[in-house]
Amino acid sequence: MMLNSTAKSALAFIASFALLVVPLVGRTGDLQNSATGAARLLPAASRLRELPLTAVQIQDPFWSPRLEVNRTRTLEHVYKELELTGCVQNFDLASGKAQGKFGGPWWADSDVYKWIEGASYVLALHPDTQLESKVDGLIAKIAAAQQKDGYLDTYVQLNLPDLKWKSLAFNHEMFCAGSLLEAAVAHHQATGKRSLLEVALRLADHLDSTFGPGKQAGIPGHEEVELALVRLYRLTGEKRYLRLAQYFIDSRGQKPSIFERQYEQLPERQVDLLGHPMSIKDFYRRFFLVNPAKFDTSYSQDQLPAREQRVAVGHAVRAMYLYSGMADLVYESGDSGLWEALQSLHDSVTNHRMYVTGGIGPSERNEGFTADYDLPNENAYQETCASAGMVFWNYRMLKLTGDARYADVMELSLYNALAAGVSLTGDTFCYVTPLASRGDFKRDPWFGVPCCPTTVARFLPALGRYIYSESPDGLWVNLFIAGQVNTKIAGKKVTLQQSGNYPWDGKIKLTVGVDAPQEFVLRVRIPGWAARAEFQLNGEEKLSPRVVNGYAEIRRSWSKGDTVDLTLPIQIQRLEANPQVVYDHGKSALRRGPLIYCLEQADQEAPLEQIILPQGAQLEGQYMPELLGGITVIKGQGLSRPLDDWKSILYRPARTANSSPLPITAVPYCVWGNRGLGKMAVWVDTTP
Amino acid sequence: MMLNSTAKSALAFIASFALLVVPLVGRTGDLQNSATGAARLLPAASRLRELPLTAVQIQDPFWSPRLEVNRTRTLEHVYKELELTGCVQNFDLASGKAQGKFGGPWWADSDVYKWIEGASYVLALHPDTQLESKVDGLIAKIAAAQQKDGYLDTYVQLNLPDLKWKSLAFNHEMFCAGSLLEAAVAHHQATGKRSLLEVALRLADHLDSTFGPGKQAGIPGHEEVELALVRLYRLTGEKRYLRLAQYFIDSRGQKPSIFERQYEQLPERQVDLLGHPMSIKDFYRRFFLVNPAKFDTSYSQDQLPAREQRVAVGHAVRAMYLYSGMADLVYESGDSGLWEALQSLHDSVTNHRMYVTGGIGPSERNEGFTADYDLPNENAYQETCASAGMVFWNYRMLKLTGDARYADVMELSLYNALAAGVSLTGDTFCYVTPLASRGDFKRDPWFGVPCCPTTVARFLPALGRYIYSESPDGLWVNLFIAGQVNTKIAGKKVTLQQSGNYPWDGKIKLTVGVDAPQEFVLRVRIPGWAARAEFQLNGEEKLSPRVVNGYAEIRRSWSKGDTVDLTLPIQIQRLEANPQVVYDHGKSALRRGPLIYCLEQADQEAPLEQIILPQGAQLEGQYMPELLGGITVIKGQGLSRPLDDWKSILYRPARTANSSPLPITAVPYCVWGNRGLGKMAVWVDTTP
Repeated sequence: MMLNSTAKSALAFIASFALLVVPLVGRTGDLQNSATGAARLLPAASRLRELPLTAVQIQDPFWSPRLEVNRTRTLEHVYKELELTGCVQNFDLASGKAQGKFGGPWWADSDVYKWIEGASYVLALHPDTQLESKVDGLIAKIAAAQQKDGYLDTYVQLNLPDLKWKSLAFNHEMFCAGSLLEAAVAHHQATGKRSLLEVALRLADHLDSTFGPGKQAGIPGHEEVELALVRLYRLTGEKRYLRLAQYFIDSRGQKPSIFERQYEQLPERQVDLLGHPMSIKDFYRRFFLVNPAKFDTSYSQDQLPAREQRVAVGHAVRAMYLYSGMADLVYESGDSGLWEALQSLHDSVTNHRMYVTGGIGPSERNEGFTADYDLPNENAYQETCASAGMVFWNYRMLKLTGDARYADVMELSLYNALAAGVSLTGDTFCYVTPLASRGDFKRDPWFGVPCCPTTVARFLPALGRYIYSESPDGLWVNLFIAGQVNTKIAGKKVTLQQSGNYPWDGKIKLTVGVDAPQEFVLRVRIPGWAARAEFQLNGEEKLSPRVVNGYAEIRRSWSKGDTVDLTLPIQIQRLEANPQVVYDHGKSALRRGPLIYCLEQADQEAPLEQIILPQGAQLEGQYMPELLGGITVIKGQGLSRPLDDWKSILYRPARTANSSPLPITAVPYCVWGNRGLGKMAVWVDTTP
Repeated sequence: MMLNSTAKSALAFIASFALLVVPLVGRTGDLQNSATGAARLLPAASRLRELPLTAVQIQDPFWSPRLEVNRTRTLEHVYKELELTGCVQNFDLASGKAQGKFGGPWWADSDVYKWIEGASYVLALHPDTQLESKVDGLIAKIAAAQQKDGYLDTYVQLNLPDLKWKSLAFNHEMFCAGSLLEAAVAHHQATGKRSLLEVALRLADHLDSTFGPGKQAGIPGHEEVELALVRLYRLTGEKRYLRLAQYFIDSRGQKPSIFERQYEQLPERQVDLLGHPMSIKDFYRRFFLVNPAKFDTSYSQDQLPAREQRVAVGHAVRAMYLYSGMADLVYESGDSGLWEALQSLHDSVTNHRMYVTGGIGPSERNEGFTADYDLPNENAYQETCASAGMVFWNYRMLKLTGDARYADVMELSLYNALAAGVSLTGDTFCYVTPLASRGDFKRDPWFGVPCCPTTVARFLPALGRYIYSESPDGLWVNLFIAGQVNTKIAGKKVTLQQSGNYPWDGKIKLTVGVDAPQEFVLRVRIPGWAARAEFQLNGEEKLSPRVVNGYAEIRRSWSKGDTVDLTLPIQIQRLEANPQVVYDHGKSALRRGPLIYCLEQADQEAPLEQIILPQGAQLEGQYMPELLGGITVIKGQGLSRPLDDWKSILYRPARTANSSPLPITAVPYCVWGNRGLGKMAVWVDTTP
């Protein structure tokens, strides 16, 4: 069936409509699913639920090799670097079992926790006694470093013991705490062990006894603990953790800010700022004080109360964690004020401040947001942690609404900005991830601030989490990643097998497994970029499912072996940016399915800066099994600006250029930079 | 007469040619005068000579108001800031006459000297007892601060007395020394007084007794003292100063570098790095050590011996001072190795690393050069001091050759990048000078690093220096700045009056004054941007002067009142950049005469990012006497990209845009940013 378009939200309610066409571009011309008007918050009982990680197996041509590299190479590499840089030893220093100098940045604990979280996901899916004992060893060190009162932050314990919780904008105590809580939940769910969970509970209880109404005022300088507390609440049912998360979110944006009040009490004492000595107060002044009279806390999203925030500001990773925590609270409580804020913030990010790759945060200065449409390419910051944050946040927005507009962004960020964050060999990473390069960019094995490698290590093994969701009446297919899901619907075992060669190909087969015929709704996302989608039941019957919020709903009594064949048109699109993005004037980007493409110098016959992609250029996909792990490249006829008559002249009166034809080849952005140094561009000069 | 074109260098030798056309673009298509092949170093006796500053009066519609603002506003403003920030008091601290904390950056002395230099030029042209006594007062403080051995650098005396001359890459002792020498020469020439000159001579002698063959090894971390020593030599005839300049230039680029050797001996002691504590060794590591194994000294042009340098690298201001010093040595000695290097460096800068405004140094990281064609617009660094340096250097190259290609660049930098460095009110300045702005840029009254305000203060009152030159056989007109020059040729008094309304108009009248008929050559530069130039003698006779290296040579026996009318076609040109400048793809810049134009939001009817300047657009100049001090704007018909159907969409499949006509107005780049915050662009989207 074909899904149409201009009145999508109206059509969504007309199930009997013979011909439904999902828009190539919605009514607004957007590339994402964007039903008219605001997304609707589902009632609590209908909100999408996450399946256990072990319920999902991945056997996917695109992702399986990446997950295998992550498991066999990245995890080990990251562990080695954590050891080499002293991040592991910090726990022994804090417990008094070793002597030495604190290693890594002042939030190094979080990177160890993130590694444990990633390792736990791996253990859940691939039992591995060697890895498990490595994790156990680490947990023993962590537990030994924890104070009796539950406090745990080796940097503060070793360097600033008098400033516990007193310098929240500088120290990352709560970010580390959040990372620990997440790791502990993951570890417990993977192994059934409580060793790390007990540490986390003690720390969470310490947090809860320290902060809150009538106790000390505090908010995280780097958000993360909010969503982690909700996660711990979901595991334990302990409402104090949920309330504490709510307290942290509700306490942002005070006047004067909590950070400002803490700042007044701080000593001028110097600390080591990644190799440079700086006083803590200097750090505050640098990031928060615009001038002595004004404390600007937008860097940490502390400029307004959370429910009054409408525009995405400040450090991009911090913002993603805050918005994710807000979404988790909405999930638990239906908080309409936070939901209203989240919708505006989502509009701010995705319609005004996001790269075409789904990445965010253009500026190195604050590692974050600047102004609407300020999206430079060559010096795009687009931190990998922020790209992961886009997945975290959009996944939560999807769970709240069942609206594919969020799954579209999640897929965009996942397949492009985030996937580009790690090399195909799994041992080098992007911290900064530009959208254009003059040939001097490469991924690095490690960073003084190593958050991105540990983010990759913990993100990828949990990929299964995002593919499917459940609701009381059935199963949701959010992403087209081949493999299988095993679950229960209405108490009865259901499996769904997904096969295909996505994103290279648009044919996806879903095979249902049930013990006995069973009625439920299978909801399948139709990507916003897809001009039309066809559904076929059991290889014969064309289906015309109604489409609600970008999901095709197939409600029937399913029998074992029933198949649904989905055909998405994987076509090449030449994209243009809103003219307010001045950096992309006169340029196009190429998209094929969910993948954004780029031109790398290695594939071209002329210097990259000479290449023009004319309007109307014939472009076609060509699968190259030997190239970059097997990819579909885009080949076509471009134009070459003549350089020969320029010689070494720099400027001259404009004249008409005689461009000559030139074959060009584009590769997916997610695999760029895997062939040594070379020029790259996502946005390519075009002719109007 | 008309001067033509494609075979300019051949034609230059055919004086009798009836129709000589200077190229709109040279054989290479460049906008500068670029005779085929290398410029020729003139024999020593023929090199152009500078006239005393007092020989030149300026009465120019463009420059006189700027000079008056500089004299009446800038000088006072800068002095006040120097006092407020402690830069003046530093001398009292060093002499023990006051107690307190060192003020300003560690080269604050140089800013005081530069102010004295500027004030001296003003005194030379406008006797002013109040200003003179202010200068005298400063000089007394400076003299009192000087050590008995001649050493003088208040920062080092007060903060690092054990490290005199031992940390030359970090401390700016030699930069300050050079600034003092220049100020002293200017002060002596303006007032006849020796008060500051004696201080300078003691310091120069101290330098000479400290550094050189068989003495301590040393080179300036920030060049400047080389050209200053030559200047002192020219005043005093003392050859030691010339030899010392030669020593400093010859000592660059050693392996291991002098800086590297000094680094090994440095303590880790912390110093105040503009408000941030940093160890001196850290400073070295940050700027010079790429990794522990490799010392990269290109930041200070110390990567190679001066005569082996071929590519402009490192800090742009440092580079300009070095190249100027090298040119001064060539002037004095004819050093062919340095001359060869200078020619390559000039090609490197002007044909590969220069903005269309004549500014240089794109990067904030090193305040300097990066790679060929790396010329971003919005984050162009283009420091005002570097723009002044372009004038210093190109002026010296002109004196060596009499080749207008250098005067073309000098004029370009002067009327555009440099003139933009100060507001029309004379009390705010650009340190960084972008070529595009999203509306958040403004000039500031002062900077933690205040070199640019003091550069403006000392540059403008010496503007007369660049307008004319002498050679044994006559007078050269390099710039079209109205006023008068009084000199002697072959011992006889000659005056030349220049009148006109340049750069708004291309008609220039030159009136000769002699006591009795006298033969000499009047050489008049024909700008590289001029498609043709017409000369008329005494309002009647069309002249057909031969053109040598871009200068029309009019040799005759001049009588009192003889006039030469020069007509330059001030036409509007739409420029394009070499396609290797990726930032300018699909864009044009507007030029009218020597002025580069820009679009400011204040003059447009649509948001700047919507405006397209189509090929073939009708453009015309219109003089607006009330606007920005009186300017000729460029008006024309542009196109407006439609924004209405974009709404808040960020990306979409490309479609054909229906642009609508829109009047546009461009203003000279040199006056941008004088009407509050607003968007600006030099390079404007075009249609091919």
